[in-house]
Amino acid sequence: MRVRNKPWAKDKIEQNPQYVVANPEDHRGKWSEIFGNDNPIHIEVGTGKGRFVTEMAKANPDVNYLGIELFESVIVTALDRIIEEELTNVKLLNVNAKDLKEYFTKGDVDRVYLNFSDPWPKTRHAKRRLTYKSFLKIYEDILVDGGEIHFKTDNQGLFEYSLTSFSEYGLLLTYVSLDLHKSDYEGNIMTEYEEKFSAKGQRIYRSEARYQNK
Amino acid sequence: MRVRNKPWAKDKIEQNPQYVVANPEDHRGKWSEIFGNDNPIHIEVGTGKGRFVTEMAKANPDVNYLGIELFESVIVTALDRIIEEELTNVKLLNVNAKDLKEYFTKGDVDRVYLNFSDPWPKTRHAKRRLTYKSFLKIYEDILVDGGEIHFKTDNQGLFEYSLTSFSEYGLLLTYVSLDLHKSDYEGNIMTEYEEKFSAKGQRIYRSEARYQNK
Repeated sequence: MRVRNKPWAKDKIEQNPQYVVANPEDHRGKWSEIFGNDNPIHIEVGTGKGRFVTEMAKANPDVNYLGIELFESVIVTALDRIIEEELTNVKLLNVNAKDLKEYFTKGDVDRVYLNFSDPWPKTRHAKRRLTYKSFLKIYEDILVDGGEIHFKTDNQGLFEYSLTSFSEYGLLLTYVSLDLHKSDYEGNIMTEYEEKFSAKGQRIYRSEARYQNK
Repeated sequence: MRVRNKPWAKDKIEQNPQYVVANPEDHRGKWSEIFGNDNPIHIEVGTGKGRFVTEMAKANPDVNYLGIELFESVIVTALDRIIEEELTNVKLLNVNAKDLKEYFTKGDVDRVYLNFSDPWPKTRHAKRRLTYKSFLKIYEDILVDGGEIHFKTDNQGLFEYSLTSFSEYGLLLTYVSLDLHKSDYEGNIMTEYEEKFSAKGQRIYRSEARYQNK
């Protein structure tokens, strides 16, 4: 995603700590307090402008959502959506995915969503892919036992890589679609990116993978 | 594959026991005797007209190949190829895949190839798919420890199914290509079917999966 410089973004984020959680490290192990209920917590790593996470929040009022996004200039759009729609079961974290363990402890998270993550196509950049083994370890360390990763991408190379990365890490592949929009999968919520690229005839790939008890 | 009735096929097979192995149950645990060497043995389950297995045999003289095919009317074409090319490192078995354990014992086989297997698209026929768990058990029982299944298909539904079936059985996915003919995979040998369907622009899917020590 091209990231525009928005010098006012930082201020806006700081002015809305009820939506973009301030000091997320203070909530480690006690995220239910933030939401005021014990509903399961699903996080989207790389939430961008937040369409997916906010639409999911509307469709699933019994789930709490956290959108993780590093770039202030895009997370502000997600913030606008939440304010406008007055959603109470979705919050945002303006942090780096590699630091997730600072904000979550084992069992804090029930599911991880990865949508249209940066493919980092060069082999020497494989470690930056959000499905690289070091990230799979981070997700494992914050998920409940048997937690799941739900992953969508239009990038063929990233999907091929990720299926083998999941398998080699020991995750169980429970669902694979090689053309999501022509499949019988129901309830798909499109990201901004997904709508744009599928309209061009691009295939969307989707998988679900589950951590196994060790 | 449409199977033509060829009443002479049975006779021709019986007249060539040096190529279409007669009484394969007699060679269980001692297939190296048939080939006169200790080279690894790779089998193709559903070998059809035999183009893949004979081309592989030519390209890899240090591997012994066995083509498994139930239908006499197509295995005779594979037989013709072997006779014509005077190949010594490929034989045929005119048997049913579900009976493989009658002909092979644990460790007899080093690799299983599945190419363009019947997709059996209806859910109620899933048990007939050559990547169904009962077949994965048969392959495990005849393969060496750490043996591999190399699988190609143009059928999207069968490929999606097979990736999850491999994973749920405990196999490790080590390679996935979602568009083999546009990938950098080298040394691909096309089956008759593969050539025909890829010429129509159909994608070819390919995976490698490895049994893990238990």
